[in-house]
Amino acid sequence: MSASHWIGVDLGGTKVLAGVFDEQFQLLGRQKIPTGAEEGPAAVLGRVGEAVQGAIAKSGVERDSIRGLGLGVPGQVIHDRMMVRYAPNLNWNNQELQPLLPSDWSWPVVLENDVRVGTYGEYCRGAARGARHVLGIFVGTGIGGGLILDGKIYHGFHGNAGEIGHIIVHWRKGHTLEKVAGRKSLMKKAGDLLADAPKSMRKPWKSYDTTQMKSSQLAELVGNFDPIATQLMDDCARAVGATVGSMANLLSPEVIVLGGGVSEALGEDFRERIWEFAQRFALPGTLDGVRFELASLGDDAGIIGAAALARDTITGT
Amino acid sequence: MSASHWIGVDLGGTKVLAGVFDEQFQLLGRQKIPTGAEEGPAAVLGRVGEAVQGAIAKSGVERDSIRGLGLGVPGQVIHDRMMVRYAPNLNWNNQELQPLLPSDWSWPVVLENDVRVGTYGEYCRGAARGARHVLGIFVGTGIGGGLILDGKIYHGFHGNAGEIGHIIVHWRKGHTLEKVAGRKSLMKKAGDLLADAPKSMRKPWKSYDTTQMKSSQLAELVGNFDPIATQLMDDCARAVGATVGSMANLLSPEVIVLGGGVSEALGEDFRERIWEFAQRFALPGTLDGVRFELASLGDDAGIIGAAALARDTITGT
Repeated sequence: MSASHWIGVDLGGTKVLAGVFDEQFQLLGRQKIPTGAEEGPAAVLGRVGEAVQGAIAKSGVERDSIRGLGLGVPGQVIHDRMMVRYAPNLNWNNQELQPLLPSDWSWPVVLENDVRVGTYGEYCRGAARGARHVLGIFVGTGIGGGLILDGKIYHGFHGNAGEIGHIIVHWRKGHTLEKVAGRKSLMKKAGDLLADAPKSMRKPWKSYDTTQMKSSQLAELVGNFDPIATQLMDDCARAVGATVGSMANLLSPEVIVLGGGVSEALGEDFRERIWEFAQRFALPGTLDGVRFELASLGDDAGIIGAAALARDTITGT
Repeated sequence: MSASHWIGVDLGGTKVLAGVFDEQFQLLGRQKIPTGAEEGPAAVLGRVGEAVQGAIAKSGVERDSIRGLGLGVPGQVIHDRMMVRYAPNLNWNNQELQPLLPSDWSWPVVLENDVRVGTYGEYCRGAARGARHVLGIFVGTGIGGGLILDGKIYHGFHGNAGEIGHIIVHWRKGHTLEKVAGRKSLMKKAGDLLADAPKSMRKPWKSYDTTQMKSSQLAELVGNFDPIATQLMDDCARAVGATVGSMANLLSPEVIVLGGGVSEALGEDFRERIWEFAQRFALPGTLDGVRFELASLGDDAGIIGAAALARDTITGT
């Protein structure tokens, strides 16, 4: 049989990333371009086509050898109708994709939510390799999640299971995990704490605008033992840890992967602190032999996961 | 082919219930006897044998026609080793069952946690019939749960997934759903509220010992518009409702079944109140077309579920 190649596309709110992979999942070509979400769905899909075209050109593979393409999108997906139900970062509602796919795509396309795709990447080729039951938690501006149960992305009745950021972590106030521990809310909390803090404590924050603050800046402050930044990180770890403990009790995962911008920036200390809290909350035995790992694929998790998902879906493996 | 019959056993902390079913899952014979947990595991399994023997005798079926038996136990199960890891109501720890099974059992035995078995009963023959993704929540002295995902009991890595009562519903305090909304904690809260209440409000509670109070007594007070009982029910519904909302976001179930002593006693009003809260917390669309039902099989859910599980496991359907 001739060579097979697979394409993975990670369509984000600001950039489109496309990659061409061989059967051993070596990355042969990669292209990144801006999404241009403000130009509307047709233009966005045009740019997806450009990114794919660029990645193919760089890879040097024949178009005929491409067996399929996986497309990760930042929103809720209706799989069997090739439709995006809701994608706030793209400003899409009930957007049909089939009519907008580039006309030169002669291969089957598999559509999936971007966080589920990233989790699948970590499951196939990253930190969760070899496990059957995987939970992905991605702590960034918001908090996303993905479930791999018995070796498959779990979709549930409506197709969008995995929204771990929308678990309620305060039953009386109705606060979600994302509301308590997402970067956006950490930054809001920073603002509140700073408003109340003595001048000496406000000083290290002077050069930052908390409403625009990056995860790397928060990590820098934590690295300098800043008390406010440390408290923010600890609260975040406590809420995420409680949720990891809940998930252990509810789903008994084998590997839990921690990704997203905040996790990448805060790194190993953050992972350890979450794990400490998770162990407090998990039932005895539930975490025995369970691995809790930082995501290992970085920005390529999406394209690797999308390409792997296309292969596994299309070949039925 | 000759007739096939299946046996379901519900081993509880205080009673053993056994039932013999035909292929259409008609109950042909049923026997209930005390567990006698204080006499130890061998005696308990002896009594399980008696209950099964009694149910067979009442059913009038030939022993040769029995194809298998399902056994639900109130604890954590290690399925492939026919072992009970931990069953507090029986005072069992790492109890092997194979050597203790009655010697006249010539059929295969399938072991499962009692709440998962009850959920399976509701899935096969009760309120959740026809659905593929089912969540069972049983609110009683404690809070138990079960997950049917893609038509199968979901076990996860360690085999005991489904512990919905051990989801953290207050991230900072680390309180579990069971701790906030189980009957035991409701009764404790009743004691606290009463200690602080004016005499007129304490009066309707005079004849009850809150530490021993039954769900039916709580329901009676709610029925009389007692403000303390109503607040307890509402808090319970709020915490369970938040969790149902969380589960909708995380797992996207098709049917959610509400069972257990507290739910049975409080009935439809309780179910409605939980559903109101769940809808507040679920993501848009997540509960569209989703059913939230009171359990319909009552005390027989365990034996029906166990027999159905034995059949489905043994015949591979």
